[in-house]
Amino acid sequence: MLKLYSFQGSGNCYKVRLLLSQLGIPFQVVETDILAGEAKTPEYLAKNPNGRTPMVEFGNGNILCESNAILYHFAVGTQYLPEDPLARTRTLQWMFFEQNNHETTIAVARHWLKYKQVTTEHRDRLEDLHKGGCRVLGVMEQHLVSRPFFTGDSYGIADIALYAYTHVADEGGFDLSGYPNIRTWLGRVSSQPGHITMDHICS
Amino acid sequence: MLKLYSFQGSGNCYKVRLLLSQLGIPFQVVETDILAGEAKTPEYLAKNPNGRTPMVEFGNGNILCESNAILYHFAVGTQYLPEDPLARTRTLQWMFFEQNNHETTIAVARHWLKYKQVTTEHRDRLEDLHKGGCRVLGVMEQHLVSRPFFTGDSYGIADIALYAYTHVADEGGFDLSGYPNIRTWLGRVSSQPGHITMDHICS
Repeated sequence: MLKLYSFQGSGNCYKVRLLLSQLGIPFQVVETDILAGEAKTPEYLAKNPNGRTPMVEFGNGNILCESNAILYHFAVGTQYLPEDPLARTRTLQWMFFEQNNHETTIAVARHWLKYKQVTTEHRDRLEDLHKGGCRVLGVMEQHLVSRPFFTGDSYGIADIALYAYTHVADEGGFDLSGYPNIRTWLGRVSSQPGHITMDHICS
Repeated sequence: MLKLYSFQGSGNCYKVRLLLSQLGIPFQVVETDILAGEAKTPEYLAKNPNGRTPMVEFGNGNILCESNAILYHFAVGTQYLPEDPLARTRTLQWMFFEQNNHETTIAVARHWLKYKQVTTEHRDRLEDLHKGGCRVLGVMEQHLVSRPFFTGDSYGIADIALYAYTHVADEGGFDLSGYPNIRTWLGRVSSQPGHITMDHICS
C-alpha cells in the first residue's frame, strides 16, 4: 500500500491526505514528527535528501516529494485537474504562487506562532511575514470576486493547495474578517464531497 | 505576437526567454523594470494582480504568470518535458523545490546584494539565507552525483528552472567551488543547442 510520510499539523501534508481521501485511494500514514527531527534522520534523508514532508512511497520503492507535485501526480485524469491546456497551466500557476508567495509567508508565520518560541528577532520578521501574507490574501480575494474556485467553475488541486494554509491563517496571526470572498470560498471547499478536516486522523 | 513582460536581470524571467528561444517561438520582450515599480502600476496589476514578472500575454489577451507554470505550458509536447507520468511529476517536483527552497534563499540573497542597499537588518537575514541556500545546493549536488540532468538523461525544464539562479549564485555571495557536480551540470546546460545567456537581449 501507498505510504504517506506526513506530519499531522503540516498544511503541506494535509493537502495530500485530503486529495487521496477524496480520490478514494488507500494509503498508510507514517506519522513523521518534523519538530523532533524525524525528517532529518539518515534513513529519511536516503529517501528524500531535502528532508521535508510530505513524502509518498510506492510499493515498488518509488518516492515522490513536494506537496503540489504529489497533488498533480494523483489528480491527472481526474475531475481535480482540468484537461484543457490553459486551465491546467493556470492550476499550476496558482500552485506555484502558493509555494512561492503564500506558504513562505502565511505558513511560516503560523509555524513560528504555533510551534516555536517567538524571540525578538522573530517578532521583527513576523511583521514582514504579515505584510507579505496580507498582500497574498488580497490577490486571492480579488481573484475570487467573480469565480467560485481558483481555476474557474470547478473545485480542484489549486483550491486544495491554497486551502491548506489559508483555513488556518488565524493561527499565523491573520484575521480573515476583511476577506469575505476568501471566507465564502473556504466554506465551498470544506463542503466538497469527501472533504476531511486537517485534524482528521487517517489510519 | 506573444508578449513577454520581463526584467532583464531576473532569473525567473530568464527561464522563459531561454525556453522560448530554444523552442524557436517568436516573442516580443516588454522590458519591465521591477525596481522602478513597473510591475505595480494599475495597468500591470489589471493583468497580473500579483505584480510580478515574468508575465506572458497572448495575442487574444490571455495572460499567464509564474515562471515555472509558463515553462510547463510551452514545454508540453516537446522534448523539454517528459511524457512518462512519474518523470513528469518529478520535473514538477524539482520546479516546486526551486520556487519554495531555492528561489527564496539564493535569489533573495542575490537580489539584496545586487540591487539593494544592504542594511544591518539585511545582514543578519543574509546569514540565514546563505545557510538555507547552501543546504539547497547540497541537495542538488547529491542528486547530480549519478545523473547528468535533474530529471534523468535529458535536459528539460527542471534544469532551466534550477539553472536560472544557480549560475549566478555567486552574485548572492555563494561559492560554488565546493559543488563540482553542480559546476559540471551548469556547463552541460549552457552547451545545449539554442542556449542563450542571461545577458542576451531578446528583441
